[in-house]
Amino acid sequence: MPELRKDPIIGRWVIIATERARRPDQFTTEVQAGPAEKPCPFCEGSESHTPPEIYAIRPNHSSANGPGWQLRVVPSIAPFLRIEGDLDRQGKGLYDLMNGIGAHEIVIETSRHIGNIADLSEEQITKIITCYIDRINDLEKDQRFKYVLVFKNHGWKAGGGRVQHSRSQLIATPVNPKRVKEELAGARNYFLNHERCIFCDLIKQEIRDKERLIFDIDGFIAIAPFASRFPFEVWILPKKHSCDFTSLEMSMRIDLARIMQQVLAKIKKGLNDPPYNYILHTAPFRRQKIGYWKTLDEDYHWHIEIIPRLTRVAGFEWGTGFYICPLPPENAAKFLREVEV
Amino acid sequence: MPELRKDPIIGRWVIIATERARRPDQFTTEVQAGPAEKPCPFCEGSESHTPPEIYAIRPNHSSANGPGWQLRVVPSIAPFLRIEGDLDRQGKGLYDLMNGIGAHEIVIETSRHIGNIADLSEEQITKIITCYIDRINDLEKDQRFKYVLVFKNHGWKAGGGRVQHSRSQLIATPVNPKRVKEELAGARNYFLNHERCIFCDLIKQEIRDKERLIFDIDGFIAIAPFASRFPFEVWILPKKHSCDFTSLEMSMRIDLARIMQQVLAKIKKGLNDPPYNYILHTAPFRRQKIGYWKTLDEDYHWHIEIIPRLTRVAGFEWGTGFYICPLPPENAAKFLREVEV
Repeated sequence: MPELRKDPIIGRWVIIATERARRPDQFTTEVQAGPAEKPCPFCEGSESHTPPEIYAIRPNHSSANGPGWQLRVVPSIAPFLRIEGDLDRQGKGLYDLMNGIGAHEIVIETSRHIGNIADLSEEQITKIITCYIDRINDLEKDQRFKYVLVFKNHGWKAGGGRVQHSRSQLIATPVNPKRVKEELAGARNYFLNHERCIFCDLIKQEIRDKERLIFDIDGFIAIAPFASRFPFEVWILPKKHSCDFTSLEMSMRIDLARIMQQVLAKIKKGLNDPPYNYILHTAPFRRQKIGYWKTLDEDYHWHIEIIPRLTRVAGFEWGTGFYICPLPPENAAKFLREVEV
Repeated sequence: MPELRKDPIIGRWVIIATERARRPDQFTTEVQAGPAEKPCPFCEGSESHTPPEIYAIRPNHSSANGPGWQLRVVPSIAPFLRIEGDLDRQGKGLYDLMNGIGAHEIVIETSRHIGNIADLSEEQITKIITCYIDRINDLEKDQRFKYVLVFKNHGWKAGGGRVQHSRSQLIATPVNPKRVKEELAGARNYFLNHERCIFCDLIKQEIRDKERLIFDIDGFIAIAPFASRFPFEVWILPKKHSCDFTSLEMSMRIDLARIMQQVLAKIKKGLNDPPYNYILHTAPFRRQKIGYWKTLDEDYHWHIEIIPRLTRVAGFEWGTGFYICPLPPENAAKFLREVEV
């Protein structure tokens, strides 16, 4: 069973892998990207190469774990967290730990062998968004979980796998991740002072300033954030206030698919298909129960952060949480605005 | 002038490079390690290839910026922050920014062409420690600065440069880095509850438990921390309570040099000379002035964190501050204990 351990000083939880652990001597050189498996286990027709599907978008006449699907979700074959068991929170002297209970699912975003979500249709990306919402809603029913992290690792350097088939991941965790708590606390603090959502204010300012704006379409904006940590970091935010990604109605899902497709296509074309991550930031489950991070629906605003992986992150950043961004976000926004897709 | 920008939600400061900025089209592929320059600008005899020295350990009869030295400190030729100017703090709507004032210095750790500090003598490492202390004390006199970050990037993947000549860096910053504030806040919180330093308690527990202990020598211990973020992460802590690295007396500097040399030699030998970072964590300057992070000398404990760079960091970690460590620290400690150096 993997363990969740809490840093006693900072309060950050870490997953310590056990079953998935490598032996110490396997770390002497980083595992490099080898050749991809053939046939691709994620393509239509290879359904027997994955664990049985948890969720699928497929026509009524097709059968589970057979061909004909448009999108599938399967459990990870190398999960960071285990679905079975109790949390069993305990202390060991001044340390806190619990069992690594959670869910780890893979969203296979297309039945065709396409590597980058930027090359999928808006219609298909809309299905991916709907899948995220459906899976989060399902995982919320499990009372052990506090958060579902939805993210994508595209390309080897961004943590992606060897197989070039577009997919993303969901991890349900029994604790609220530290970064999420910090965002909630920062947003709540602003709300208490101003009685306004800080993200709504930020969106208004970015639309007015224009210099960091990449897209302003019907329901969403895409910006290079003012305090970008990384070159070409992009945030996509819904203009209408909402703390909860899962409440997104269908017309907004279509808008989100369009802006995601266009932003990711610009990054692909303008930056020569770089590795990247995107991460959904949404409010945790059961917010009323989070103690002094008690959160109102008014003070948080869901969004997606996209991080191209173009630079090395050095000791300075690790040690301090103080990032050095070698490109002003205004220049990044101008560059991305001008890439034609 | 580089800018310091504050993320309005999280409160994290980011340095936005300007003079040092690359053009957007220079990011399309990451700059790879090219061949090292010849002759090495950091070797004895090449003093004219660096800016004039700020500090040196050299015999009295030798002249500044000439040969004969044992250690030199020079300004960075590509500084992240600029020494000249005023902070000029300002707001822009809801954003905060200030000029990127600071100091960025390179410690050339040896006059010989040796790439890894692990291959230097304990005597030479003692000189490096003394140099860190002298430079921090000097930079503290500048009232604009709140913190000096001392760190090393060893190897290309860890952010090191192309030239294989052992060196470390000092960056003086006009704000307290977020990670440092979090550590101070966590340690203060524990102190308020227990009237004991959390690090002192942690050291006692690790010496008693033994399973994460790598070294226990005269003045110091080296451990694999309980909630390690990375495989083979190592912390070196002084057993005697002290919040302030610069108060380290000479006999303790010799002990620290010994444990650093031994830990880094074990990492080099056992893990095949991996890239790594180390970062000094010490109390900020002028602690009484930090507002609600007002800190007593009793509640913080300086230490050094060493992070071998053996794994890719993926979207999950970036998005959440929630790390997945693929090796239990107990296994890492056992492995490092058994490496003979």
